[in-house]
Amino acid sequence: MSPTRDQILHTTASLLEKQGCHATGLNEIIRESSTPKGSLYYYFPGGKEQLVSEAVLQAGRAVADRIHTYLAGETPPSQAIHDFILRIADNMEASGFAAGSPLSAVAMETATTSSRINAACQAAFNTMIAAFEDKLLASGLEAQHASDLAHFITATIEGGVMLSRTMHSTEPLRVVARQLSTALTC
Amino acid sequence: MSPTRDQILHTTASLLEKQGCHATGLNEIIRESSTPKGSLYYYFPGGKEQLVSEAVLQAGRAVADRIHTYLAGETPPSQAIHDFILRIADNMEASGFAAGSPLSAVAMETATTSSRINAACQAAFNTMIAAFEDKLLASGLEAQHASDLAHFITATIEGGVMLSRTMHSTEPLRVVARQLSTALTC
Repeated sequence: MSPTRDQILHTTASLLEKQGCHATGLNEIIRESSTPKGSLYYYFPGGKEQLVSEAVLQAGRAVADRIHTYLAGETPPSQAIHDFILRIADNMEASGFAAGSPLSAVAMETATTSSRINAACQAAFNTMIAAFEDKLLASGLEAQHASDLAHFITATIEGGVMLSRTMHSTEPLRVVARQLSTALTC
Repeated sequence: MSPTRDQILHTTASLLEKQGCHATGLNEIIRESSTPKGSLYYYFPGGKEQLVSEAVLQAGRAVADRIHTYLAGETPPSQAIHDFILRIADNMEASGFAAGSPLSAVAMETATTSSRINAACQAAFNTMIAAFEDKLLASGLEAQHASDLAHFITATIEGGVMLSRTMHSTEPLRVVARQLSTALTC
């Protein structure tokens, strides 16, 4: 991937995470990514919908990679997921509560207003859910149970991030980490 | 409250729920609420920030009222909350997945970009959390446990709504309802 294209996608994902899709204009992306205007239209001829969709997909893959990396090894799912959530909380605090979930604002803004971006959000969430599912399957859960718990874990983390970002406090996410860890008996 | 003021707030809340804060313009609110332009500026002289903040606060109170009403009575929290989530799922499906959480898009867009709207989102979430807490306290839980579980329940429902709206399917929320009900041992 070209460094310029990658930089545009990275900047877009950060802005989407902080303020959502509609607040993020192409001029702001050009300015913040320090790339020439022509590059944006060259790499993303489909304009904002293409750019946002690709940024969402890339962010989903990056989160799934972090889940796979962090949950690798023999630590039981309940403990590994607890610790993973605390890491999200620390990163969120370090960002001044601007970061935490690259998908949530975009997903809610576009669920019924842009079929292209919605399809990207669906794929990105499914990639994240599958990463948790892999850990649960590896720890011996049967398929339906692993799928159900992976959805529950993803929902709970996304909601915890929402409360913590809104409250400007890691405490809701820490509470969610403890409660989820207790609920997961694996 | 004046019917016109109420109509403006109601329309604003619906648009915030469907598409978030930045996509929702004052002209669209005027058009969709069928109110004269002057009324909006008369009732909300502080403009969009005031209007969105008041719509968020009113939406938070409305959700808390529904929680109190639906969870009243002797049904144990785990069962009552399970059934409450299924009702959210049914309403979401009836709205074509445009509705489900009046706060989530706005909360994520404005967490670090508008201190006035962020304060309203904090208050609205706290009102919802307190409504779950009341049910848990009434069923005999001690204060800290009730507070922790109320945060966990709110996070899980918000995340479940996010997945279901994104997937255009009530299934994620139904899975979340079952898993949360199992996790709540009260």
